Amino acid sequence: MSKKKKQDPDAPKTGKDLARSPRGFPDRREGLIHAQAEMIDRVTSVYRRWGFEALDTGAFEYADALGKFLPDDDRPNAGVFSLQDDDEQWISLRYDLTAPLARFAAENWQTLPKPFRRYASGPVWRNEKPGPGRFREFLQCDADTVGAPGPHADAEMIAMAAEAMRAAGAGDSEFVVRVNTRRLLNAVLSGVGASDAGTHLTILRALDKMDRLGESGVADLLGKGRMDDSGDFTKGAGLDPEQVKRVLAFAQAGRETRGETLEALGQAVGTGEEAQAGLDELTAIARALEAFGCPEGDVAFDPSVVRGLEYYTGPVFEAELLRETLDEDGNTVRIGSVGGGGRYDDLVARFTGEKVPATGFSVGISRLATAFAISGNIDALNGPVVVLNLNREDPSDALRVATELRNAGIRAEAYMGGSGMRPQMKYADRRGAPVAVMVGEDEIAKGVVTIKDLKEGAKQAAAIKSNAEYREARPGQFEAPRSEMIARVREIVEAAE
Amino acid sequence: MSKKKKQDPDAPKTGKDLARSPRGFPDRREGLIHAQAEMIDRVTSVYRRWGFEALDTGAFEYADALGKFLPDDDRPNAGVFSLQDDDEQWISLRYDLTAPLARFAAENWQTLPKPFRRYASGPVWRNEKPGPGRFREFLQCDADTVGAPGPHADAEMIAMAAEAMRAAGAGDSEFVVRVNTRRLLNAVLSGVGASDAGTHLTILRALDKMDRLGESGVADLLGKGRMDDSGDFTKGAGLDPEQVKRVLAFAQAGRETRGETLEALGQAVGTGEEAQAGLDELTAIARALEAFGCPEGDVAFDPSVVRGLEYYTGPVFEAELLRETLDEDGNTVRIGSVGGGGRYDDLVARFTGEKVPATGFSVGISRLATAFAISGNIDALNGPVVVLNLNREDPSDALRVATELRNAGIRAEAYMGGSGMRPQMKYADRRGAPVAVMVGEDEIAKGVVTIKDLKEGAKQAAAIKSNAEYREARPGQFEAPRSEMIARVREIVEAAE
Repeated sequence: MSKKKKQDPDAPKTGKDLARSPRGFPDRREGLIHAQAEMIDRVTSVYRRWGFEALDTGAFEYADALGKFLPDDDRPNAGVFSLQDDDEQWISLRYDLTAPLARFAAENWQTLPKPFRRYASGPVWRNEKPGPGRFREFLQCDADTVGAPGPHADAEMIAMAAEAMRAAGAGDSEFVVRVNTRRLLNAVLSGVGASDAGTHLTILRALDKMDRLGESGVADLLGKGRMDDSGDFTKGAGLDPEQVKRVLAFAQAGRETRGETLEALGQAVGTGEEAQAGLDELTAIARALEAFGCPEGDVAFDPSVVRGLEYYTGPVFEAELLRETLDEDGNTVRIGSVGGGGRYDDLVARFTGEKVPATGFSVGISRLATAFAISGNIDALNGPVVVLNLNREDPSDALRVATELRNAGIRAEAYMGGSGMRPQMKYADRRGAPVAVMVGEDEIAKGVVTIKDLKEGAKQAAAIKSNAEYREARPGQFEAPRSEMIARVREIVEAAE
Repeated sequence: MSKKKKQDPDAPKTGKDLARSPRGFPDRREGLIHAQAEMIDRVTSVYRRWGFEALDTGAFEYADALGKFLPDDDRPNAGVFSLQDDDEQWISLRYDLTAPLARFAAENWQTLPKPFRRYASGPVWRNEKPGPGRFREFLQCDADTVGAPGPHADAEMIAMAAEAMRAAGAGDSEFVVRVNTRRLLNAVLSGVGASDAGTHLTILRALDKMDRLGESGVADLLGKGRMDDSGDFTKGAGLDPEQVKRVLAFAQAGRETRGETLEALGQAVGTGEEAQAGLDELTAIARALEAFGCPEGDVAFDPSVVRGLEYYTGPVFEAELLRETLDEDGNTVRIGSVGGGGRYDDLVARFTGEKVPATGFSVGISRLATAFAISGNIDALNGPVVVLNLNREDPSDALRVATELRNAGIRAEAYMGGSGMRPQMKYADRRGAPVAVMVGEDEIAKGVVTIKDLKEGAKQAAAIKSNAEYREARPGQFEAPRSEMIARVREIVEAAE
């Protein structure tokens, strides 16, 4: 980033120009907020039932605690939002929930229950280029066990991830948690003689594209390179055909069941020490998954799973939504990955010097909520009952009626804008109110209220041809004695739910 | 702030030094998290029942949209956290929930229901010096009506604030919502001929101290000035004794009931236009509060209420907890103000040019949760049932038992750390587990589990004198057939709740 701070004096921002939110920080309205809150509730309920406890850390961490190199530059840590505190230390907004957990665990290790099992949910921030569906602020919901060395702790994360997917609303065959281990990947990398980090990365990136490019595309990327449809050439890992074959045999060792995949992997990875350790790890995970009663279809061993982050040291896993949904424009959308995790035995050691084995799982709440919102699992929410005020002098009667409804447990409000009937009806309509209750001096004198069933009214109105007829018919509208108001309103509200 | 960025090469941060959170951003554990979530839930439930809808804006706003002067300096907006985006615009973390609402309402005014009624809850950030109980990140929970000109919209906020206090757990006489209006304050200021902003501020600040300094202290601050106990002198507003008397008569016009206070205020503020407008406003609010069924003791008219923020233009209100509580050290603590609000008719106009009347209320969730947490309303939470694994070779049986318990709806986990009995018992203890279930090869062979009631065990153990006796007695511990496990565990868990 450039150091200069331009402020064009010819183009000061005033008035409406000011009223916009920064790119990548979208406003969220009622429907999405409820979908996300509901998802967090469902997922954390699973984490809680499995014994995890809540922990919230602050939005900021010291930049050096986030574990990236801190250059003496204007803005350290590309990819995170950082600023200098008044004591000149750089602080950064968390980019995930794992790094703050590692800091917390290291800071409090002496007094924590060991292992320390915590869940957390909240926003994380990434200073990246925003785009469609790519935000710079989004919600994650994590569970981690710090201080647990065994593969059954990884298996617990995996089984719990599957349960979280089901709790979120995914049924049989609508999702899968794919599992692999870094040990097997490492064994294969050594097996083909790939020793430098660059080649490792090229191979792992190629495997990660199996879904999209298929066998021959990945084979190109493992070998000399690949020309895509637009003519762009991506340099490959430079493996010879025999090596490419071995890597592909590994990546395609996925079978119908976990047991069959284990057998196929045994063939594909050879007999080295690291290969055996990886196979033992997956075998122990398979046994634990069985003890957890985890259905075969929920979790698959998939040797093509890579996971991006550098810090995983053992098993890695990824939760994928399989079902296709329609977006608002009717296009078919496949959400894909909605969460992932793995074992990270080195993260706490950065602070303590002592190796602390840890494993965790993170759900991307925004993606999950979007998935289930666009597929219609989240119903449109009704608005409140709106009490319209026909008395221009004094709103007290309308306030009293709204209070009566609320006291009866009905969500209700009196109209708070200026006077006039038309804006009041328009308001009730825009709020999605199921019922409008009208109160004026006439109604009070007669001991009644006028109730309008807005959904029924809209239905009847559709069949009416002229304005005159409409005014005459007053569709969906009726008078009720004040003593019956609550019962009549409740009836319509409940029918609308 | 200085521009230099020191990094002392002699004192690089490594290891444990790194493991600390930035000042003013405390970590929150289980108990406080639940207390805060519960408070948010209770308060937003009230807002929802009154018809408000949810809106969440992002953490960042453009600095210029937050409405403070943006100097061409390294860090604009003292008091907020700001940084430069990659397009060189300054963005700031929100310091309250009202400024983002004003931006949102201006941006979307055409399509919103009018009035627009939203609630929001979430963290806000202030770049201030942290101290005991003063954080740089805290939770607010707001409701606002944008586009509502009438005093009954203010009255709704006030009545709802009282209901929120009750929902939070405050009973009769344990809280009060104090109400005043800027119009009366302005009338009094004009009445004593105070015309410059500096004198206004000095007078308002003096009134704000009535609680702490009493009549004579405030009289000094309104007049020539005040010497405090330490000998420090604060310059006064320079009013003459007659003027001081008038201001004090106003500030002390609070009476037992809202009606009596209105009468006393009528005497104290004279007959000017602004005074009459203020009295009319409070009279209309009193009438609306009655229509809302708001108890006399919940809301008081109090002419000494000032409220700090510059942007209020009409009624202002403050929710105060009256009851005293004991903190952890047994000291008496009075929490005081836990929320406030008022009418701000000019805030949206900054964007649109058009005056949009608005009123709102904000609850400080952190303070409220602290208030009820330290007074014992939030019970200590039980930990999960912990299944201890006595089989060093294979944890499957322990995993299976934990799964069985979870499937029966009991919060349970298998111990995930290394082997050994002692750390397992210590773990169950630190987690506050009500029950430990022990599973080993012996138990499996006999078709039983060993159940330990940890609370009962601790009670019995207190009466035991020697280790030998303890090992013999195994306090609180018994064997149960596997088929009875769920029933026996559930019994103990429910008794512990």
